[in-house]
Amino acid sequence: MSDVRGRGFRELLRVETALQRFFQALGTFTPPTERVETMDALGRVLAADVRSEMDLPPFDRAAMDGYAVIAENTFGGSPTNPVLLEITGKVGIGEPATIEGVPGTAIAIVTGAPMPTKADAVLMLEYARPGPRSTLEVVRAVSPGENISRRGEDVQRDSVVLRKGTVLRPHDIGVLAGIGRTHVDVIRPPIVSVISTGDELAVHGEHLKPGQIYDMNRPVVIGLIREMGCVPLNLGVAADDERTIALKVEEALERSDVVLISAGTSVGEKDLVPTVVNRAGAPGLVVHGVAIRPGAPTGLAVVKQKPIVLLPGFPVSAIVAFEAFVRPLLTRMLGARPLPPPRMKAKMLRRVPSHGGLRTYVRVKLSRLGDEYVAEPIRASGASMISTIVRADGIVIIPEEKEGIEEGETVEVSLLRPVE
Amino acid sequence: MSDVRGRGFRELLRVETALQRFFQALGTFTPPTERVETMDALGRVLAADVRSEMDLPPFDRAAMDGYAVIAENTFGGSPTNPVLLEITGKVGIGEPATIEGVPGTAIAIVTGAPMPTKADAVLMLEYARPGPRSTLEVVRAVSPGENISRRGEDVQRDSVVLRKGTVLRPHDIGVLAGIGRTHVDVIRPPIVSVISTGDELAVHGEHLKPGQIYDMNRPVVIGLIREMGCVPLNLGVAADDERTIALKVEEALERSDVVLISAGTSVGEKDLVPTVVNRAGAPGLVVHGVAIRPGAPTGLAVVKQKPIVLLPGFPVSAIVAFEAFVRPLLTRMLGARPLPPPRMKAKMLRRVPSHGGLRTYVRVKLSRLGDEYVAEPIRASGASMISTIVRADGIVIIPEEKEGIEEGETVEVSLLRPVE
Repeated sequence: MSDVRGRGFRELLRVETALQRFFQALGTFTPPTERVETMDALGRVLAADVRSEMDLPPFDRAAMDGYAVIAENTFGGSPTNPVLLEITGKVGIGEPATIEGVPGTAIAIVTGAPMPTKADAVLMLEYARPGPRSTLEVVRAVSPGENISRRGEDVQRDSVVLRKGTVLRPHDIGVLAGIGRTHVDVIRPPIVSVISTGDELAVHGEHLKPGQIYDMNRPVVIGLIREMGCVPLNLGVAADDERTIALKVEEALERSDVVLISAGTSVGEKDLVPTVVNRAGAPGLVVHGVAIRPGAPTGLAVVKQKPIVLLPGFPVSAIVAFEAFVRPLLTRMLGARPLPPPRMKAKMLRRVPSHGGLRTYVRVKLSRLGDEYVAEPIRASGASMISTIVRADGIVIIPEEKEGIEEGETVEVSLLRPVE
Repeated sequence: MSDVRGRGFRELLRVETALQRFFQALGTFTPPTERVETMDALGRVLAADVRSEMDLPPFDRAAMDGYAVIAENTFGGSPTNPVLLEITGKVGIGEPATIEGVPGTAIAIVTGAPMPTKADAVLMLEYARPGPRSTLEVVRAVSPGENISRRGEDVQRDSVVLRKGTVLRPHDIGVLAGIGRTHVDVIRPPIVSVISTGDELAVHGEHLKPGQIYDMNRPVVIGLIREMGCVPLNLGVAADDERTIALKVEEALERSDVVLISAGTSVGEKDLVPTVVNRAGAPGLVVHGVAIRPGAPTGLAVVKQKPIVLLPGFPVSAIVAFEAFVRPLLTRMLGARPLPPPRMKAKMLRRVPSHGGLRTYVRVKLSRLGDEYVAEPIRASGASMISTIVRADGIVIIPEEKEGIEEGETVEVSLLRPVE
């Protein structure tokens, strides 16, 4: 396990500097793409702009129930002086728009039905009274184009409907369906190997032997990867043994695009992962020790052009390191920015100290106080205790430039849970 | 298709009143539960409180690398006057805690290893100097309990770790793994049938005939259902024919927990769905016509104790009606509150009118202006055009009590997309 306070590191790199060094060592990355059915593309990232091959709607259509007319023929119509038009037919929805509008006539039409050619407006039902025989009385004039939904008014042929990098939401799937796109090219999400190291780790489902605990980091990290829309590859637990770890890392590099390995990442006697990773290939570790709290014993490495992130052993430290480094990495590989997490403002209940130069992640519990929310910090230490984040409603980040948060100070909370 | 402005309805019910009437007609609902593997439970809703059957950690363990000692034996130690202790052994992680601490001795220990019995503190490496032979010099005293992580300090046996109704996040999966829970009882999410009606609708993948358009509402609604963690059942398109619609509704009631049917829900000639639903069983429609814009021609029905929501035919209206009625319904059936959508504040670029008594959903485009964001309203009409929501970055809701938004007024935007 790792020393949570970052002792023993020569230097703790700031998050931005560390990420810069990491991304530079990784070089440019062109994500692989794949073609999927539009109906299966929810949450996927568009690999290319989508241009429409058709007009939507593909024809002029009625936007109201009423009568298709030539607008000019209705001019002057009023309740006291109605204009008389002859009803010569009816267009239903889903029918071809082959009927022709003739001066002095009206064609019954329902919303969504194609406009008869030459007709240029729809007279709403409210403004038509039944007249003698098959006529109607127009009691209000309509203007040309009124109550018509024009061909291509929603989407024009050849226009770009969705940009490359869009994370597809339900309404995006809708517009793709609307323009007849049955398939789309999307980014193939990275496969992310997850390895835990530690002689004390029992595997979920096994009986605990004395001195053992259940591995928590793998389940947590696999969940975070899934929530991002990436594909976790669970490579299990490696004992604290260089050869065992080296074999797992080799397997991970072969089978996945990203390797996450937790615990044994610090500078202590049992911290074998840095050594193993450096031996696996150049450049190896490009960052070791970062200015976040908790989470200092994080390492960023590049081997065989693939990113390896060494996550601290304490579960809360691993989560914070994931947020600070793995999330930006995977976001970059997905070629898309995700929606931000839900946030809210709250007043800090107590003073929270922090060290200048360190980015500090404070878990908080929220409660309502009148119209406001109050954030109660959960002890800043205790990164070994997963309950300190399970009990939290959100996270407050104290940036590097700031020393602590004052009592009563308003802060922005990233929500982990819904609040009352 | 439906008249978007709600004309023809005798009364438009306010959202809260409509939901109240709907939920009352539905009666109490006990969601079915199922047992799933913890590793497959991400995003699921806990059906019962989870109590821990073990202490976490299950034993006292070292929280630092150093020496397990009896604290009292270190008292008085200082750089100039060190206390001498004999090193009698070593405990590694994953080993049983069977070694006994003996007064006057120290046992080498690494973070995470079980504490020797009787030892009550860990002397950090920094405060120990090598002494003659197998001894060490203590240069600073430690207090009892120092640098020890106590049995049960993270989770106490028999305590409630997670409450019923929790939507399981990655760290929740972690704590469940940590306390050895291989399975959890969760809510079985509702199966939601989705039917589109309309003679003009072509099915995705088919060639468009004249007068036809592709169905957009089903793809959109299926996506919204999926995003909520519920299970869509795609029942395709029904022609505007009472018998066809009735058969689809019957099938939907048999195969699913909730029925969503879009278009043909208003009060026009082609609006057959209300009639069909009322015939399908009592009480039938309990709400028809709601005070939202767009989305007025929405219906809420109960047949065979199952909820049926009649969604308007225009895609944006269908989305708004989903947000106003289907989301609260499914949330209630899931027994959990979801995280709120990400929100941000912005200044409205232009005045937006709205009718008092109507809840108005305004699509907006966001752009940065200095330190602030500016929201530009996308035309409030045009609910037939899906592009008006595809182009939007977010939604602003004007509540019933408010008449419009002034130019420059600060509003809260629910984000549909990440913003720059």
